[in-house]
Amino acid sequence: MVNITHKSPSLRKAIAQAIVKVSSEVTIDAIVNRKVPKGDVFEMAKVAGLFAAKRTADMIPDCHPLPIEFTAVSYEIKGLEIYVMVEIHTIYKTGVEVEAMHAASVVALTMYDMLKPIDKEIVIEKIQLMEKKGGKSDKKKYFP
Amino acid sequence: MVNITHKSPSLRKAIAQAIVKVSSEVTIDAIVNRKVPKGDVFEMAKVAGLFAAKRTADMIPDCHPLPIEFTAVSYEIKGLEIYVMVEIHTIYKTGVEVEAMHAASVVALTMYDMLKPIDKEIVIEKIQLMEKKGGKSDKKKYFP
Amino acid sequence: MVNITHKSPSLRKAIAQAIVKVSSEVTIDAIVNRKVPKGDVFEMAKVAGLFAAKRTADMIPDCHPLPIEFTAVSYEIKGLEIYVMVEIHTIYKTGVEVEAMHAASVVALTMYDMLKPIDKEIVIEKIQLMEKKGGKSDKKKYFP
Amino acid sequence: MVNITHKSPSLRKAIAQAIVKVSSEVTIDAIVNRKVPKGDVFEMAKVAGLFAAKRTADMIPDCHPLPIEFTAVSYEIKGLEIYVMVEIHTIYKTGVEVEAMHAASVVALTMYDMLKPIDKEIVIEKIQLMEKKGGKSDKKKYFP
Amino acid sequence: MVNITHKSPSLRKAIAQAIVKVSSEVTIDAIVNRKVPKGDVFEMAKVAGLFAAKRTADMIPDCHPLPIEFTAVSYEIKGLEIYVMVEIHTIYKTGVEVEAMHAASVVALTMYDMLKPIDKEIVIEKIQLMEKKGGKSDKKKYFP
Amino acid sequence: MVNITHKSPSLRKAIAQAIVKVSSEVTIDAIVNRKVPKGDVFEMAKVAGLFAAKRTADMIPDCHPLPIEFTAVSYEIKGLEIYVMVEIHTIYKTGVEVEAMHAASVVALTMYDMLKPIDKEIVIEKIQLMEKKGGKSDKKKYFP
Repeated sequence: MVNITHKSPSLRKAIAQAIVKVSSEVTIDAIVNRKVPKGDVFEMAKVAGLFAAKRTADMIPDCHPLPIEFTAVSYEIKGLEIYVMVEIHTIYKTGVEVEAMHAASVVALTMYDMLKPIDKEIVIEKIQLMEKKGGKSDKKKYFP
Repeated sequence: MVNITHKSPSLRKAIAQAIVKVSSEVTIDAIVNRKVPKGDVFEMAKVAGLFAAKRTADMIPDCHPLPIEFTAVSYEIKGLEIYVMVEIHTIYKTGVEVEAMHAASVVALTMYDMLKPIDKEIVIEKIQLMEKKGGKSDKKKYFP
Repeated sequence: MVNITHKSPSLRKAIAQAIVKVSSEVTIDAIVNRKVPKGDVFEMAKVAGLFAAKRTADMIPDCHPLPIEFTAVSYEIKGLEIYVMVEIHTIYKTGVEVEAMHAASVVALTMYDMLKPIDKEIVIEKIQLMEKKGGKSDKKKYFP
Repeated sequence: MVNITHKSPSLRKAIAQAIVKVSSEVTIDAIVNRKVPKGDVFEMAKVAGLFAAKRTADMIPDCHPLPIEFTAVSYEIKGLEIYVMVEIHTIYKTGVEVEAMHAASVVALTMYDMLKPIDKEIVIEKIQLMEKKGGKSDKKKYFP
Repeated sequence: MVNITHKSPSLRKAIAQAIVKVSSEVTIDAIVNRKVPKGDVFEMAKVAGLFAAKRTADMIPDCHPLPIEFTAVSYEIKGLEIYVMVEIHTIYKTGVEVEAMHAASVVALTMYDMLKPIDKEIVIEKIQLMEKKGGKSDKKKYFP
Repeated sequence: MVNITHKSPSLRKAIAQAIVKVSSEVTIDAIVNRKVPKGDVFEMAKVAGLFAAKRTADMIPDCHPLPIEFTAVSYEIKGLEIYVMVEIHTIYKTGVEVEAMHAASVVALTMYDMLKPIDKEIVIEKIQLMEKKGGKSDKKKYFP
């Protein structure tokens, strides 16, 4: 685990994305109209994502435990693809990129799990970092 | 959570895949030759995957806790893509598809975390179920 | 921890209740109309309850780890009181009473946490076992 | 999860209470005289409460992880009611009210679990915040 | 993780030991007379051991999750050495040796942590398996 | 739990050691040459140790949760004994001695678990604090 004792805390932000691709418009309708038997997919998957953000250091060996000070989960539907966006902020010595990616992956997996009784062909496509701010190098796209 | 009290246990298997796409042959070489500063990527990510397999019900709301009775993590390198395969077996009333996908995603995220100091452009692609056996419908490809 | 190696598994059910008492009709309206800033209270608290049911043995020293095979969380509003009901089933050697009570308490605490920005006077009342079935003594009320 | 990156840390305290109501003086005697078969109820439940205080962010979706810097669990017996008091301090950007209530609930549930072999009629009454100090509004009662 | 799907469950028992060596009779007296400031060392460490037994698969990569069906923690004082004994039973396809050793180590570490304010020279000696029963080979000593 | 709200954070370091004693040179060879069937013992046990360091407050009742800012696991082979060394740093109000000892014990237990199919006589000897720096009293040996 990288030594960060000498680093100074600063505001760090990250946005990660996961794409959940369903096979039919029927699945999208069931989500939007809250007709999925296991419950409200977007609300339930968000909660799983909140917990996952906080438990990243428990799952990824070299991640430092850090104070997650903001997490937001949002969704955008584009055809048969649902874009999951997770934004995390902290004031700490290291960034929250992996935390955001981990949370996005768990949101996507929860959606998969809730939807598999009604759609057998779901794939999780591209879990990736979209933005980070703070630290040595920004990767600007959303944060002005 | 779906009621499974009335179901009978049987052998259930699942194989899930995640693809980690790196940006340079240098990254592949560092992994294979165990030159990544954080450690042996394949061995360390495997351990994260073993834990993740066992903790799936802790991360995904509707997953039933179940006795993971076998887990194997393997890797295949194809150009700049590393295919992570996770195979899980149980004898229980419900399948281990989400467990295999969850473990595959955590293996991939651990690789991402270990590699990001040396490669800033890694993307995790396609977390998907490859095979399942047991339960109402098989999805045969690897299991004969 | 009580020795249960000699016991035979059988169907065990439990229903536990927690009562969340808010101070104003405005709070009830915000919940029902999904206007609480932190999100959909009933859906989000349900997820916390699902996880809590599964993690009871992690929180209560003498609880045996057991296969939670069904969990349902439901709500009933009576004036300013919200009745949280959690029903859990297992087929195992010991009952799920404490699991149901633990889940009900975490559902109630999540509601408290989500509602405290809009209502400072919430109290959690009566966390209690309502029903159990299976084992030496039933406590019948809901299970026929 | 509420954004707290802009807030300044300060000393925050909270005291929460849970009431465990037993059905007989015999139960009280067994606790006080350490004759409960599962062990010393007050000591064992205190440990469960210490862990619960620290794991609140793991159980309640919107709770921020924070440095628990003091936890005390105490008991007061009034007739057939046992008052569980949990006091928690932190120096952080947000309060520890839910942490104290969560810990109090787990102490009470542990007592319930340890006592149910000898008393079938235990109810957990009123889990509530008694005091908080620091943050926008104090709720003074114990803290001078 | 070793494949155990083909194995049959049977009664498995293990006893493990850890030795906590303190530096002075004063420490022993403080424990026995419950004068250690952090609380009743034997009772509190026992609880930590109960949780540790149940969480072994969460800490040790290749351990299978299994139903812990009995755990007992006992202590024996011999001069300046405290022998911690943890006995665990399960009915499952694999043994509980590592579970017993893990629990014994956590009991010992908890004692160390509670005692270090009053004794700076504590060492944990010999964490070892004393007995196992069931499986291919017994290691008999205590189990007749 | 000791109140540390009034203390100031400073750099704290600890090194703990565990000794894993195997019964044969064959075992040592299998480790060094990565021929142990369960995988690369040193790499896999290191990961278990990284997680254990971070989860100490989850296992030991009175340990404060704290930001682990550096962890290193190293090994030294002396005959049939393998010395496991875990070094942990933090900048916080309390030390990381128990964290280092806990991580060392989990590294040792993981080695035991991975090696027991090929060596039945492994004992974990002496889990002890070797060094600490920061706080009221240093225990100097390695830190200059």
